[in-house]
Amino acid sequence: MSEYAKIDSYLEKNLEQSLAELGRLVAQPSVGAQNLGLQECAALVAEMLRARGFDVQIMETAGAPVVFGERKGRSDKTLLIYNHYDVQPPEPLELWETPPFEPNLRDGKLYGRGVSDDKGHIVARLFAIDSILAADGELPCSVKFIIEGEEETASVNLFEFISRNKGLLKADACMWEFGGVDHRDVPMLYLGLRGICYVELSIETAATDVHSGLGGSIFPNAAWRLVWALSTLKGEDERIRIPGFYDGIKPPARRDRELMEALPDVAEEYKSRYGIKGFIKGLTGGTDLKVEEVFTPTCTICGLTSGYQGPGSKTVLPARASAKVDFRLVPDQHPADILRKLRIHLDAQGFNDVQITDLGSDPPARTDPDKPFIQLVVKTSEEVYETPMQLVPMTGGSGPSYPFVHDLKLPVATAGLGYPDTRTHAPNENIRVDLYLKHARHMARILKEFA
Amino acid sequence: MSEYAKIDSYLEKNLEQSLAELGRLVAQPSVGAQNLGLQECAALVAEMLRARGFDVQIMETAGAPVVFGERKGRSDKTLLIYNHYDVQPPEPLELWETPPFEPNLRDGKLYGRGVSDDKGHIVARLFAIDSILAADGELPCSVKFIIEGEEETASVNLFEFISRNKGLLKADACMWEFGGVDHRDVPMLYLGLRGICYVELSIETAATDVHSGLGGSIFPNAAWRLVWALSTLKGEDERIRIPGFYDGIKPPARRDRELMEALPDVAEEYKSRYGIKGFIKGLTGGTDLKVEEVFTPTCTICGLTSGYQGPGSKTVLPARASAKVDFRLVPDQHPADILRKLRIHLDAQGFNDVQITDLGSDPPARTDPDKPFIQLVVKTSEEVYETPMQLVPMTGGSGPSYPFVHDLKLPVATAGLGYPDTRTHAPNENIRVDLYLKHARHMARILKEFA
Repeated sequence: MSEYAKIDSYLEKNLEQSLAELGRLVAQPSVGAQNLGLQECAALVAEMLRARGFDVQIMETAGAPVVFGERKGRSDKTLLIYNHYDVQPPEPLELWETPPFEPNLRDGKLYGRGVSDDKGHIVARLFAIDSILAADGELPCSVKFIIEGEEETASVNLFEFISRNKGLLKADACMWEFGGVDHRDVPMLYLGLRGICYVELSIETAATDVHSGLGGSIFPNAAWRLVWALSTLKGEDERIRIPGFYDGIKPPARRDRELMEALPDVAEEYKSRYGIKGFIKGLTGGTDLKVEEVFTPTCTICGLTSGYQGPGSKTVLPARASAKVDFRLVPDQHPADILRKLRIHLDAQGFNDVQITDLGSDPPARTDPDKPFIQLVVKTSEEVYETPMQLVPMTGGSGPSYPFVHDLKLPVATAGLGYPDTRTHAPNENIRVDLYLKHARHMARILKEFA
Repeated sequence: MSEYAKIDSYLEKNLEQSLAELGRLVAQPSVGAQNLGLQECAALVAEMLRARGFDVQIMETAGAPVVFGERKGRSDKTLLIYNHYDVQPPEPLELWETPPFEPNLRDGKLYGRGVSDDKGHIVARLFAIDSILAADGELPCSVKFIIEGEEETASVNLFEFISRNKGLLKADACMWEFGGVDHRDVPMLYLGLRGICYVELSIETAATDVHSGLGGSIFPNAAWRLVWALSTLKGEDERIRIPGFYDGIKPPARRDRELMEALPDVAEEYKSRYGIKGFIKGLTGGTDLKVEEVFTPTCTICGLTSGYQGPGSKTVLPARASAKVDFRLVPDQHPADILRKLRIHLDAQGFNDVQITDLGSDPPARTDPDKPFIQLVVKTSEEVYETPMQLVPMTGGSGPSYPFVHDLKLPVATAGLGYPDTRTHAPNENIRVDLYLKHARHMARILKEFA
C-alpha cells in the first residue's frame, strides 16, 4: 500500500533515534516493588508525551502517579492506549549479561529491564505517532494515553482511578499494554484475560514451636491443620469444592472453540519445555487441552511453608503454617465473591482458625472477537507481518482489563513487540529490533484505519 | 548414712576441681553436624578414663569413634554406663550470653555447649568414681563406659557397634546418658523411650516451576500432590490411616496408668508455656492427657516446603514439594515395619510418585518398673534428693535405648543433672552446680548398692 510508504520510510530512517529514546527511558529505573524512581520515570514519560504535542497531566493516586496524555485528531474517534512505566525488580543481578539499567544493543536485540515490559511498547507507540505527524502533520483520530506506575504491583489503585475518571478516559477502543508473536512469528491477539484472586492462608496453633517428642500426641499442629484445610479446597479429581465456586461461569462458545482449534497444538512443546510427563484430568493435547488451559478456573497452591525446612531432620511440631493460593477466574466469576465463598467454606469445614489474607485480585474480562475494532487490528497486521493476527479468545494470565471492558465499555485489543524469548520478569529481558519496528508500523496503521 | 560420709565429704571438697575438668571437656568443641573436633574430644575422654585406671579403647565405626573403657571391681557385677561426647551445634551464637565453648560459672550455674548434654553427665559420673576410689581404693563393681560420638546425629552406627560387640558390652544393668529433676526438683526416672521413624516425603512433577497463569488448569502441581498424599496419612480425627500402623501396640498396663496418675498434672503448665488454647482429641488434662502424651504413636508434620514462600504474591506453580514427617512409635512398633507400610500405603493411594527418604530411626524400648535395678536407683536417690525418684513409665522423646534393652538385655535407668531450664540444644545451655553434686552423690550410691 503506497498509502504507508512515507510512514514506513520515516520509521526505517528514524529507528536508531527511537531506540535511543527507549534507551533513555530504560536507563531510568522505576521498580515499584522497591519504590525506586517512580516519580522520576513518570516525569520522563510525561516529557516524552509533551514532546509529541500531548496535553499531559501527572495524576496522583494513593500509590504511584498515573500519566495521562491526550492529543486531539482529525476524526471524532478516540483511541485509548494503556501502558505502564513501572518495571519488575532486576534481581538476580548476577544473571544479567549486561547491567539491567544500561540498555545494550547486540545481535539485533536491545537488552534491559523493562525494554519489553512495558517501556518498549510505550516508545514504539510514540514512534508510530511521530511517523504519522511527520507524514500528515496531524493525528487521524484523538489519542489518549493512560500510563500507570503500579502494573507490576497488582495495579492496586487503577480500578478506583478509572472509576473516578470515566469522563477523562472516554474513548471508542483500547490498545492493551502488551502483545507479540508466537514461536512461529505469527502475531497473536488476546481477547481476554482470566481473573485472579491470590490469597495467603495461614494458621497459628501455639505461641512457639514444640519438640515433636513432647507434643505430637496431644498438641494441635499448624502444618496438619493447613494440610487438612487445603485438602477441602480441591480433591484429586481437580474439582474445586468451595460451594458456589463454579456459579455463573460461561462455558466457551462454539466460536471460542473454533478459535482455539485454529491455534497450534501445545502438548509436545509444554512437555519438553517444562519437563512434565503428562497433563492432569486425562488431557493429552489438541483442542481439549487448549480450551481447558484457559477456560477453566483454577485453585493453585503457589507455595507452602511450615516448620523445619533445612537438610536432615529436626523434631519440631510447628506453631505456624501458611500457603499461597492462586485462584484463576473465568467470566463471570468475581474475586470478591470467591473470597467470600472461601471464608464461608473454611468456616463450614471447621477451619475458622485459618486466616485469609487477600494478596491481590483482578476480575476476568473478555472482548468479543467479532467487534469491528478487533477485525481492524487483525487486518492491519497482515501487511506488516505477512500473516494476519491469530485470535486467542482467552489467555491463562491475568491483568487489570476488567475496568476497561466493563466500566469504560471498550473493546480491548492486544498487539505488541513481545516474542517467546523476550524474558519479561527475568534476567536479560530483551526485544527484537525487527519486531519493535513492526509494532510501530502496525500501530501507525491501526491509528489511521481506526480514524 | 554414715557409710557415705567420706564420699560426700570428698565430693564437697573436690567439687571445684571436678567442674574445672568438666570445663576442659566443654572447651573442646565436638559438633557432629559440623564434623568439628570429634577425634580430639574422643581422645580427651579416653585420657580422662585412663586417669581413673580404666582400660580404654578408641573404637572406630563408620562415623565418629566410640570410646570404650572398663575397670574391674570387687564384685562380679558390671554396670554399663552409656554417654556421648558429641554436642549440638552452638548456633545461633548471638543468643549466647557467654561464648558456648568458653565455660562460664555464674549464679551457681555452669554455662556452655554440652555442659548438660552430655559432658556434665560424663564428668559427674567420673567424679563419683573418684570419690569411691578415694574412700575405698577400689570400685565395688566392674564399670564399663560406652561413650559414643554420634548421639546428636541419630546414633547411626551405634546399633551395629553394639550388635558386633555384645561380649565386650556384657553387663548386668545400664545407666542412661540423661536424667534430672522436674519443676518441683523431684528427680524423675524414665523407664522407656518412644521410637521414631523420621522421613522426608518429596515429589517432583516437572523440571521447572511454571507460571500459574499458564499451568494451573492443565499441569500437575507438586504442592497439591503433597497435600493430597499427606491427607491420606492422618485425618482430622487424628487417626493414622496407614493400614497396619497400629499393629502390635501394647496398651499401657494398669501399673503404667498408676505411675502416670502419680505424676503432676501438666495441662495448665503446657498451655501457658507453649501458648496453646487446648489439646487435641478432646483432651483436657489429668491422667488421660499424660497417658495419651506418651503411650500413643504419632504422625507429626515437622516441616512443609514448596514454591514461593516470601512476602506478597508470586504466581508460580511449583515443580517440587516436600514434607518432613516424624512418626513416634510405641512398643512393639518397629521403624522398618512402619517404613514398609508407609510405602505400601502411598502406592495403594496412587502416590508412587512420592519419594520417601529415611532420615533416621530408633525403635521404642521400655524397662519394667519392678526390676530390682530400677528399685535400687530409686531408693538410693532418697537420701540425696530428700525425696524418692518418681517413676515415669515412658517419655515422649526417643533415643537409642533399643539395643541396650533388647540386644544386651539390660534394665536401663535414667538419672542425671538436668532440670527444666537446662536448655539442651539451645543457647545458654547450663547446669545447676547443686544438681551436679547431687548426681555425683547419687551415682556413688548406685555403684556401691549395685555391687
